[in-house]
Amino acid sequence: MDDLASGLVGWADVDAAAERIAGVAHRTPVATSGTFDSLTGTRAFFKCENFQRMGAFKFRGAYNALSRLSPDQARRGVVAFSSGNHAQAVALAGRLLGIPAAIVMPADAPEVKMDATRGYGAEVVLYDRAAGEDREAFAARLATERGATLIPPFDHPHVIAGQGTAAKELIEETGPLDWLFVCCGGGGLLSGCAVAARHLSPGVKVVGVEPAAGDDATRSFRTRSLQRVDNPVTIADGARTQSLGRITFPMVLEHVHDMLTVTDEEIVEAMRFLWERMKLVVEPTGALATAGVLSGRLDTRGARVGVILSGGNVDLRAAARLFA
Amino acid sequence: MDDLASGLVGWADVDAAAERIAGVAHRTPVATSGTFDSLTGTRAFFKCENFQRMGAFKFRGAYNALSRLSPDQARRGVVAFSSGNHAQAVALAGRLLGIPAAIVMPADAPEVKMDATRGYGAEVVLYDRAAGEDREAFAARLATERGATLIPPFDHPHVIAGQGTAAKELIEETGPLDWLFVCCGGGGLLSGCAVAARHLSPGVKVVGVEPAAGDDATRSFRTRSLQRVDNPVTIADGARTQSLGRITFPMVLEHVHDMLTVTDEEIVEAMRFLWERMKLVVEPTGALATAGVLSGRLDTRGARVGVILSGGNVDLRAAARLFA
Repeated sequence: MDDLASGLVGWADVDAAAERIAGVAHRTPVATSGTFDSLTGTRAFFKCENFQRMGAFKFRGAYNALSRLSPDQARRGVVAFSSGNHAQAVALAGRLLGIPAAIVMPADAPEVKMDATRGYGAEVVLYDRAAGEDREAFAARLATERGATLIPPFDHPHVIAGQGTAAKELIEETGPLDWLFVCCGGGGLLSGCAVAARHLSPGVKVVGVEPAAGDDATRSFRTRSLQRVDNPVTIADGARTQSLGRITFPMVLEHVHDMLTVTDEEIVEAMRFLWERMKLVVEPTGALATAGVLSGRLDTRGARVGVILSGGNVDLRAAARLFA
Repeated sequence: MDDLASGLVGWADVDAAAERIAGVAHRTPVATSGTFDSLTGTRAFFKCENFQRMGAFKFRGAYNALSRLSPDQARRGVVAFSSGNHAQAVALAGRLLGIPAAIVMPADAPEVKMDATRGYGAEVVLYDRAAGEDREAFAARLATERGATLIPPFDHPHVIAGQGTAAKELIEETGPLDWLFVCCGGGGLLSGCAVAARHLSPGVKVVGVEPAAGDDATRSFRTRSLQRVDNPVTIADGARTQSLGRITFPMVLEHVHDMLTVTDEEIVEAMRFLWERMKLVVEPTGALATAGVLSGRLDTRGARVGVILSGGNVDLRAAARLFA
């Protein structure tokens, strides 16, 4: 059974996604830092997805998924549930492709996130957390009522393939890597990047990095059975997912070398380095991979290390409190 | 009388500086922002000197100046007075060229700045503000005693020529520009960039941007006579210089189209845009040119506008207070 037949995602899917997003998604720059290399004993290459459109890698997967809809599906629109980067990614991809997008958000989501999503031309549909219905079920019902297509935030082959283009671009620019550190929430970026990296740099060891409070993927990886975590409390809001997905979990098991966790304090230290030394605004979730390398928990000395900086969407007031 | 004979700086000097710094200074990237363009009605190109070595354009001028010393001068070392980016620039250039560097700082300068300068291998020499001697005189005396060469922060042909390479690189990448906005403290960056820009893009209008509290250069430009300001209170600490220099003042008069001032509040708003929307850590002085475009005081609509982001060295704790 090949990758597509199994529902998993292979190199051909990432390669096809790269063609679809070419000229639409930014080919983001790769940053280096002599100070980081000295500190860690590595030669590190940072893929700056904080400079991606709407500020995070999520645009890659959302655009790829929306661009694959049939004309009829496109006409009927898409539904996504997210109050974070996936919301803005689907909204922007929808606007660019002329596909109506409805984003489901909790009624108590920050006004600024609703406005940003509406700013990209999407409809924001509020649901009431307190009413007991979960967001996914609410969004699925809305999609069914409207005949719209549900675009999940990570557990979808076209989303995963799109996210993998970040690692493809990185390695095309740097050449072979010994390690690749990627943040992990639901595992879309991690599994897509792992497929791309192992194709382009067969010896690479791909590592997923999670917040310690939301260590479900690490436990799932170690036990080889899907573990969950409920509402983890961490500043890495993009990694507050409950578990890996039906597609991403087997992909992580197959392609990822190791998983590790970092504390919120380690995330803030990584952010401080990225902001102060590298002049890069990176959000807490976006600093997970950097924190993973800095933790020294894996011996990367002497190695060529890729690091995905997944996004840069922060509220400066909130970030200021982290650095105060 | 040609430029060199007059002590001023011409295109040939900038071009020669570019050769000297090639492969040593970073050729920094040029950023764009669709949101900025929509807001201002321009097509803007941001030269990211926050990504320059030691975090600011100052490295260009310092390295160029130090690289021009004779072997005998190099052996006897250099002296500079600065507690800001010029200190670190001279320190780093000295280390790279094997030239001993002594940096004069006030005894009450922040420990972190002294440490950063020592970190680049320079000697820090403290002087006592309260003793009445001014810093320049103290540094000049120290240089004389040691037989060392004084490297002033802006009023020096090789420093100015080095700074001009920032505009050279920008326009080589973007093609002709209609406007170029540059921050102005002592006018080294402004005059060097103006020479380079007018050579490569003859129709360009170069604009210097100052903090309102330190508007000496704007007043000097309008009155065509050198004006001073004492200890201006502004968050743009790199533009707290008292006046333009003997070399930079006539160059500004000759090459600059207009000067304008922005308030500290406008600087913070420009920083907020650069950090939050463009994911770039830029220091207050580094955001002056951006604030100048955003102010709308000059009609740049429909134009191709270059903006120099001069540096990104901020203490995150202090910056956090600005955004709080």
